[in-house]
Amino acid sequence: MSDYRGYEGKSLEFLKHNKIKVGDTVKITTNSDNVATIMPRYEHGDDQHIVVKFKSGYNVGLEINNIKKIEYISSIDTNQTKEPSTAKPKPQLPKILLLSTGGTIASKIDYRTGSVTPALSAHDLYAIVPELDEIANVDAEVLFSEYSENLTPEHWKKTAEKLDSYSDSDYRGVIVAHGTDTMQYTAAFLSFALAGFPIPIVLVGSQRSSDRPSSDAASNLIAAAKFIVKSNTGGVFISMHNSESDDGIACHFGTRVRKNHTSKRNAFETIGAVPAFIVKQDEIIQNSKSRYFKQKQYTPKINVDTRAALVKYYPGYDPKLVRDLISHGYKAIIFEGTGLGHIGKNMYDVIKEAKESQIFLGMTSQCHDGRVNMAIYESGRDLLHLGITPLSDMISETALVKAMWALGNTKDGKIDRLMTENIASEYTE
Amino acid sequence: MSDYRGYEGKSLEFLKHNKIKVGDTVKITTNSDNVATIMPRYEHGDDQHIVVKFKSGYNVGLEINNIKKIEYISSIDTNQTKEPSTAKPKPQLPKILLLSTGGTIASKIDYRTGSVTPALSAHDLYAIVPELDEIANVDAEVLFSEYSENLTPEHWKKTAEKLDSYSDSDYRGVIVAHGTDTMQYTAAFLSFALAGFPIPIVLVGSQRSSDRPSSDAASNLIAAAKFIVKSNTGGVFISMHNSESDDGIACHFGTRVRKNHTSKRNAFETIGAVPAFIVKQDEIIQNSKSRYFKQKQYTPKINVDTRAALVKYYPGYDPKLVRDLISHGYKAIIFEGTGLGHIGKNMYDVIKEAKESQIFLGMTSQCHDGRVNMAIYESGRDLLHLGITPLSDMISETALVKAMWALGNTKDGKIDRLMTENIASEYTE
Repeated sequence: MSDYRGYEGKSLEFLKHNKIKVGDTVKITTNSDNVATIMPRYEHGDDQHIVVKFKSGYNVGLEINNIKKIEYISSIDTNQTKEPSTAKPKPQLPKILLLSTGGTIASKIDYRTGSVTPALSAHDLYAIVPELDEIANVDAEVLFSEYSENLTPEHWKKTAEKLDSYSDSDYRGVIVAHGTDTMQYTAAFLSFALAGFPIPIVLVGSQRSSDRPSSDAASNLIAAAKFIVKSNTGGVFISMHNSESDDGIACHFGTRVRKNHTSKRNAFETIGAVPAFIVKQDEIIQNSKSRYFKQKQYTPKINVDTRAALVKYYPGYDPKLVRDLISHGYKAIIFEGTGLGHIGKNMYDVIKEAKESQIFLGMTSQCHDGRVNMAIYESGRDLLHLGITPLSDMISETALVKAMWALGNTKDGKIDRLMTENIASEYTE
Repeated sequence: MSDYRGYEGKSLEFLKHNKIKVGDTVKITTNSDNVATIMPRYEHGDDQHIVVKFKSGYNVGLEINNIKKIEYISSIDTNQTKEPSTAKPKPQLPKILLLSTGGTIASKIDYRTGSVTPALSAHDLYAIVPELDEIANVDAEVLFSEYSENLTPEHWKKTAEKLDSYSDSDYRGVIVAHGTDTMQYTAAFLSFALAGFPIPIVLVGSQRSSDRPSSDAASNLIAAAKFIVKSNTGGVFISMHNSESDDGIACHFGTRVRKNHTSKRNAFETIGAVPAFIVKQDEIIQNSKSRYFKQKQYTPKINVDTRAALVKYYPGYDPKLVRDLISHGYKAIIFEGTGLGHIGKNMYDVIKEAKESQIFLGMTSQCHDGRVNMAIYESGRDLLHLGITPLSDMISETALVKAMWALGNTKDGKIDRLMTENIASEYTE
């Protein structure tokens, strides 16, 4: 196995000339001195840069022409991958469980094997993010190895069951490594299914894999661990970069967050408010005064029923597509309406039909910020009259997940009360 | 007809005591002196405030306790509504056409009749926004009187045909008064249908009706008129408040804009960039260097075919809903995928079926910012291989409208080329 994996041309020559290999800890002098670890390169690398990881957890690409000096400090054995780091727990530190479901954060993260592995082992984790060792004793467990676009409500349920099995454990909290694509959907489900869970559950993803100079994998994991250990809160959170710069990691309420950018590290945004917490280097700033779970008792409700649909309304939307949902036996439809919660009057007939079929009809807005208010305009009042339930400022995707969850945990399909009740801060106060 | 309409209790007493009526121009002294017109009140008014309109076009609610002095300056006859203001054109000013389709901006705007009228006449307009008289000679025409949630692609087509009939006129530009709910869809359609149109088309809405203290109706109209007269550009724009404060009106490219908030005056945002133009008091700031229409020749393509669907993918999405679209004869499906442009592998079979049925399949992202990039992950590469066309950073709703437009103006249903061609700045460079 090569010790220079991913490097070629000038950058390979540079490393060889300085007798430095992937995995080595070095002192690098550019404009300042820094201790860093040499990372491998996987994707579309030019030969002008080397990728290093600083102690903060940030990966950076350094142009070799700007490196004034590089000095070897130490090596790790990059071929030894079996030994679990958990062999030497520090009894004074709290315990954290890391549950991996897959995604970028749990792949391409192993710079020892050089391969793109979809599973994250305890050892892999410690080797990439040794800083965790100073924060907590982390046990790691692989639940799935799926990119999150392939996760289904069945996976949500299995995740909730697994977490439920740890509700009585001595863990201070659980980190769930997860692909970013559908992380907000899973976070919403866990929020409802595990309402009142005694310890924090923090979903962590990464927008850039750990072999890329700008990877956010390590920094997001470190922040999630710090948050679990230092904050005294329960709830389900998503922990990701807060801005394009590296000035903090946001912890978003799991029901109030959207992935709003395809590629930025700060793709996740709390809708309608600032993130509940910000984790900075050594402090945790609490922005939200509201208690996350409205219920104090932990009473898991883990079932899910996928007979709920999210219908984004647009001009030209054919009412017969809703008729299809009725005939397929759907039990809930969340309309992502326009503006304050409207859909065209050409939809009124099919709404009546859906209502006659006892289907729950909820309204959110495709304006992803602001509140639905159906009392202001004639259209809204018509729709209220037809029996559509306005869902205030609940995020559309959260509303869909909540409907699937509510249907799964209600016997008679009457989910109106659950849908309008504030269970896990899905409505802002 | 009352001259105090909407006022009651203390505010009514205040007006009567000072012998001031609705429609009167007054000098008001609070902390400073201002000339303003007394506006009627329609909705949920308390009796502590009067609503006045300043010369800037902004409506403000003033607490009567804070009014040190109010002096009558002049009246207008609030019962005389028939005489068109266009009777006295100023030959030195350019001509603008105002085409009304309905919406908040064209309703509740008449403070003479006190009624909520859905249609905007030339006279109504001048009486509410006399500042327009100094900017241009405005002809007004009512096309529809519909709230925009009720507009359909058929209305888009009629609007385009009407505008097309003025392509050879002596108007400097056209303002289209429009409900805000689906304004972005109409703007996108006009952008494609009328590509190369010789004069600017500016869609204007209002988030707050003109009888509310914070109404943006007048200020948006004034800015649109200034933009048409002073800027030397073609294209289709949406002109709305740029921030929560009153520091400017944004002119967004009609293909790059979303309504992102249900109620704020600055609900509309250019996605992935700053707005193309900002209209300040007396200057127009051009932010975009790109030419709006890629084609120089005006060759209208006004047809529309609604056999295009926007499918927002989510975990638990049932592939058979796509099978329904196939059997209904749809010709194009725009997937609003997750992240960089992904949908779950449980969808692969139905995608093959859709492809076999010659349906155009395009990919956008439900992360409403950033670019689709399907080359990075396995899922994306699979979907590319299955024949899905990545639509870069085209906004989902714009992509849907473009597909309807492309189908309407292509004989064989092969819209791939049109969909990927940059016609009206729907792709950023």
